[in-house]
This record gives sequence, C-alpha cells and structure tokens, in this order.
Amino acid sequence: MRDVSIIGIGQTPVGEHWDIGLRHLALEAVRAAATDAHIDHADALYVGNMAAGLIGGQMNLGALIADYVGLRGIEAMTVEASSASGGAALRQAYLAIASGAVNFAIVIGVEKLTDVLGSESVSAQLTATDSDYEGAHGVTPLSAAAMLMRRYMYEYDAVLADFAHFSVNAHANAATNPNAMYHNKLTVESFAKAPMIADPINLFDAAPAADGAAAVVLAATDWARTRNNGAVRIVASSISTDALAIGDRHDPLWLTAAELSANKAFRQAGLSPKDINLFELHDGSTILAALSLEAAGFAERGHGVTFAARGGIGREGTTPISTLGGLKGRGDPGGATGVYQIVEVVQQLRGAAGPNQIANAHIGMAQNLGATGATAVTHILVRD
Amino acid sequence: MRDVSIIGIGQTPVGEHWDIGLRHLALEAVRAAATDAHIDHADALYVGNMAAGLIGGQMNLGALIADYVGLRGIEAMTVEASSASGGAALRQAYLAIASGAVNFAIVIGVEKLTDVLGSESVSAQLTATDSDYEGAHGVTPLSAAAMLMRRYMYEYDAVLADFAHFSVNAHANAATNPNAMYHNKLTVESFAKAPMIADPINLFDAAPAADGAAAVVLAATDWARTRNNGAVRIVASSISTDALAIGDRHDPLWLTAAELSANKAFRQAGLSPKDINLFELHDGSTILAALSLEAAGFAERGHGVTFAARGGIGREGTTPISTLGGLKGRGDPGGATGVYQIVEVVQQLRGAAGPNQIANAHIGMAQNLGATGATAVTHILVRD
Repeated sequence: MRDVSIIGIGQTPVGEHWDIGLRHLALEAVRAAATDAHIDHADALYVGNMAAGLIGGQMNLGALIADYVGLRGIEAMTVEASSASGGAALRQAYLAIASGAVNFAIVIGVEKLTDVLGSESVSAQLTATDSDYEGAHGVTPLSAAAMLMRRYMYEYDAVLADFAHFSVNAHANAATNPNAMYHNKLTVESFAKAPMIADPINLFDAAPAADGAAAVVLAATDWARTRNNGAVRIVASSISTDALAIGDRHDPLWLTAAELSANKAFRQAGLSPKDINLFELHDGSTILAALSLEAAGFAERGHGVTFAARGGIGREGTTPISTLGGLKGRGDPGGATGVYQIVEVVQQLRGAAGPNQIANAHIGMAQNLGATGATAVTHILVRD
Repeated sequence: MRDVSIIGIGQTPVGEHWDIGLRHLALEAVRAAATDAHIDHADALYVGNMAAGLIGGQMNLGALIADYVGLRGIEAMTVEASSASGGAALRQAYLAIASGAVNFAIVIGVEKLTDVLGSESVSAQLTATDSDYEGAHGVTPLSAAAMLMRRYMYEYDAVLADFAHFSVNAHANAATNPNAMYHNKLTVESFAKAPMIADPINLFDAAPAADGAAAVVLAATDWARTRNNGAVRIVASSISTDALAIGDRHDPLWLTAAELSANKAFRQAGLSPKDINLFELHDGSTILAALSLEAAGFAERGHGVTFAARGGIGREGTTPISTLGGLKGRGDPGGATGVYQIVEVVQQLRGAAGPNQIANAHIGMAQNLGATGATAVTHILVRD
C-alpha cells in the first residue's frame, strides 16, 4: 500500500445557498482545492452526498460534477453512508491512491439541504434511520438522538445545562471562522432557555441542516513530499458500522461503530487518544459529541459531558473539538460534513487556522458519523 | 497492487419481489455468494443501489445490509452511479482488495424498482438524467435513448425491425436462465408489432424495471489460487464518465464513456475486443446495445445493428451478448444490474451456464452504463 497525502483543500462558506445550484457549489470547492494543490487534472473524483436525489432530484453526481468542473471523462461516482458520506468518500479515494490505480483524486462533499422545508425535509431525514423499524414511526436521526440524550441524563444523572458546553465551545470557535454558518456566541444561560426541538434537544443543541461544499485533493505521499509544501499525510483511515435502529444496538449509550472505527485507526497509525492534538468529531447534537468522546477513548464512559464542562474540549483543553465550529457552529451540510472536518484538520495541521489555531497541532483526527452512529468513519492526519 | 479474484457468486431471481423487503432480498444473494465462496466473514461490504432512498425511503444501505446479513460492524457503504451503481461498487471493492487494506469483500447489488408505479417511478427515473437541463423537461433515461435511436435510424438508414435482433437474442437466452424475469421468446415479427413506449422504443425493445439482488465475494488472487476452485480473476477494472445530458455530448451517437472505459480496460488487461469470448453489455434498450458494441470496439461505427442482424451477438456469434438474457430478458434491477452482469460472466467462465453456456469461454467482459452512458464501468474477467 502506498502512503497517501492530502495536497489541497477547498471549501465554500456553509449556509443557505439558494442562489446557486449544487453543481456550482461543488465547482467552487473543487476549484479552490485544485488551486491549493497546484494541479489542473485528476484521475478520479469521489462525491460525498446523501440527499441530492431526494431533495434536488439529481443522482449520478459523480459524472455530473466531473463534467462541470472540467474533468469530463474521468472516473467518478457517489459514495453514500448517510451523514458519513463525506468521510466514506475520502476512504474510497484513499484506497484508490493507496492501491496505485489512481494517482490524483478529488474528494468533493456537497449538499444542499435548505432548498426544502417541513415534510419534504423530514422525509429526507427519515431515510437515514431504519425505514421499517424507525422511519415508519417518524423517528428521524434527531429524535433518535433525543432518546439517547434522555437515557444518558437518566443513567448518568446529567441535566440539560450540562450539555451546554459543547454548543458554547462550537459557537465560540465558529465566531472566528469565516466559512462558518453562525458567528454568534452562546452562553450556558442562553442554551438553557432555547426552545425545544425534540425534547431534550433544543435549538442551541442541534446542528443546523445547511448547504455547502468542501473538497480535498489526494496524491501518493512520495509524490507529495517532493512537490507539495502543505501536504498532510493520512496515517489512518477506517470505517465501521452498527445497527441503524438504536433499539437494535447492544447498548444504545455506546457508539460501537465509533469505538471500532477509532480503534482500527489508532492501530493503523500506532497512536492512542493522548497523541491526538485535536479531534473533529460529529457533533450533530451535544449527545453525539459526548458519546463520541467516550467511544473514541477521549473520556471515560458516562463522562463525556463532564469532560466538556471541565474545559477538556476547548482550544486549550486536552482534546480540542469543533475547532472551527463543528457541525453546530460551522453548520451541517449532510454528506459534505465529513469533508469539511478533513479540510479543517488540514487547516490546523498546516498552522493556517488563524485565530482558531490550536497550538502545536501535529496530529489531528476526524470522525464522521452516519445518522446516529450507524456508520463511523475515522481519519487521522499528520503534518509531515 | 494485488491481483483480485471473484471467489463466490449469488443471485436471486429477477422479477417483482413484492413479498419481501430490500434487506431480505440482499440477504438471499449475499448468503448464496458466501456459501459459494466457502467464507463466513468479510472485511467490507459495498452496496450498489440507486433508488432505495427515492422508492423505499431507505438510505445508508451499507450499515443496514451489513447488519442484516450477520456482519454487523464491518466497513460498509453504498456506491452510486445511477444504473452503473453495481459496476461502480465492484470497482471500489476491487481497489480495496488491490490496495491490501481489505482481504475479503462482498459486493451486493440490490434494487426494488417495482414497489411504485406511474409518477413515483418516473420521478425516480428523472434523477438519473441532468435534472436542470433534461429532468426538468421530463427527459428520462428511456426517452433520451429514444432520441438517440431516432437519430441513429436517420444517420445510418436503419428501420425499427433492424433493432429486433437484440431483443430476440436476449429473450432466447433468458428462456433457459432460471433467474431471468422473462422466459417467453420473441420474434422479429412480434417485435415490430409491439406497442410504443417512447417512440421509436417499444415494449419489446426496452428492458423492464425489476427487483433483484446479486452478490460477489472478492479476495486476493494469491489466496484464491490456493483455496478456491471456482475463482475468476479480474484482469481489468475501469470507470469513465461523460456529460449526463445527451445534448451536452460532443457526439450523441458515440458513447464516449463506454469507449474510454473499454479502452482503459483493454490496456490494463493487455487484450483487445477479438480476445473477448462474451460481452455482457448494458442493453437497457436496443439502441444502447448497438452503441455499446460500437463504442467498445466490437462493431464499426454505425454497424452495431447490422452486426446483431448478421448473427454476431448470438451464442455462436463472434461476440455473444446478453448470454443469460441481458437487461432485456433477465430484467433490469437498476443498481443491481452491474453485479448480475458480473455473476453471469463468472457463470460462463466457470462453464456453469447450463444450456446458455458459451463454448470455450475463457475471457469475459461486462460493461455497466449509468443512465444513457454518462457513466461506463468495464470489467474483464479471466478463468485462471
């Protein structure tokens, strides 16, 4: 297997992009990444997307985007694993380069979730849960997370305000990220007063569905070392899965896929949680952030929330998370989110995160979850 | 890169499976393939599917199917490229094994297209064309193919009955394939009298949308040679793309993606069309069969139809196609079709195609098209 490096990154601001179509959004991110990588060609393009068919009436984004970005003819397809689609697309590109079959690959995560509202939006969300055993009863990923949060509060004697620290941290970091959806700060007090969405998940707890596109360019590390200054090496790449329906899982309060995927990644990289300088986790809601910290080995079981409350997740903490806003502050453009996470880790490892820079960031990890943890994709990146 | 072999195949009959759900359909094919391969585990599962979100309200089939077939936890995701999803999923599994990161992979193509009718079905079909420039005007893959057929008839002075030979051959072969949807034979005369669907494409010209699941198990060739009797080696794997909208293509009557993909495959394998003993092409309609023969180098430009009329495509012809019925006779279960093609090529190379056996079949090729040729996936298989 060849070592694989990221040689370019690009992103659009996350938000409500009602004025441009999905293919153009993708073009902006791909163009930025190609410029950053100093390349004008690629052999393959991997699209991370989960909802374009349901919301935009467009499938086969691989061929569509390859053509629109000026690479008509190249290998291209969509990789889908619900909200872990972006991470899963990176995994496929990584394997393609590692195999030697592909020399330059573009991963583009792109999603437009805000073109529809109400029942159309809910219908799309329902496809991410188990349609026969959850979706048919109206269980969306968010309402599934609400059940987990309620159970967590019961098991570990937590209260609503305990979860505030994840959102406060996310918004504090988003405030200085020009590509983030939100730039307002939150407080523990405002969090506690926010209107409920899916009790106990409130408006300041859940990440906003958004539009956006993020792209990375991959090449063999041997090539990158001689030709590219900002290259970041992928030292681990893994996907694990679990039951979609949370009621089917052995233990609803344990994200088994996140644990398996993190452990595979740590083994591949020869690293452990204490080696990780920042962790872009999948904070679609604060409960997922807490459970991710626990499953990936950064906090003891049942202590994810207290870990956050004690400052463990801040820029100066032992495990900074959501360093450019996370899903909550930067926004959550579905299948693009996993690629945003990677772009942000690269920004940090390059020392290019501006006011959001984590000091001495050498090793970064990203974990992208599908729905409520049915899929977990983990990547560990190192600045060479 | 490691050489990759197919060590097991499985399939359900193609048809209208209203009595069982998608996950169960997948289970039947995976179980058959795993039994055939004599394995009880795999590291990764790649799902080829294009419409489960649109028609069945279910995305993230990777985790769902991995769990349902008893492999909870393993790496899994969906690969989508419209009707080329099955072939694209095989391509990803091939790269994963070739890279060395994965030792045993299952590719499962699964689709349920017959659970909806009328506008719901058409809406799903529209997502495969360019939604802004074709879909919005009601252009489905079939009506796009109808425009290509009309143009072909004009350019090359062909008449409707000339195209009959593709369907006659497909049904003749399907008649003796127990997994095929249709077992009735067609004649040139009955073809010419069939009711129109999208003029000039008639009922006996277009492949039927269907339900079905097909699976293959992949392993490294080095392992397969010592442990598996029926192994078939993948000597070429490639994907190429083109514009989705047929009006955007440089030449609507030339399937550029099919040509590029076939040529890449021939180069990788060190082979040419004359070396191919059978060619499972994407006969979603007879015009696509004709254009595929031309683009992949089996017939001269403008001679695909006459090649068929002169017997070139029959079991005794120079390039047997649709040897177990093809999309027209076996049926076209969307994202599963590309995996059915591979299963059938393996049947032929093993000498296990029963009454459909092509004599001296050593090298077989499959080409899976996305929509009207926007994506083309080519695999060449050789019996070791």
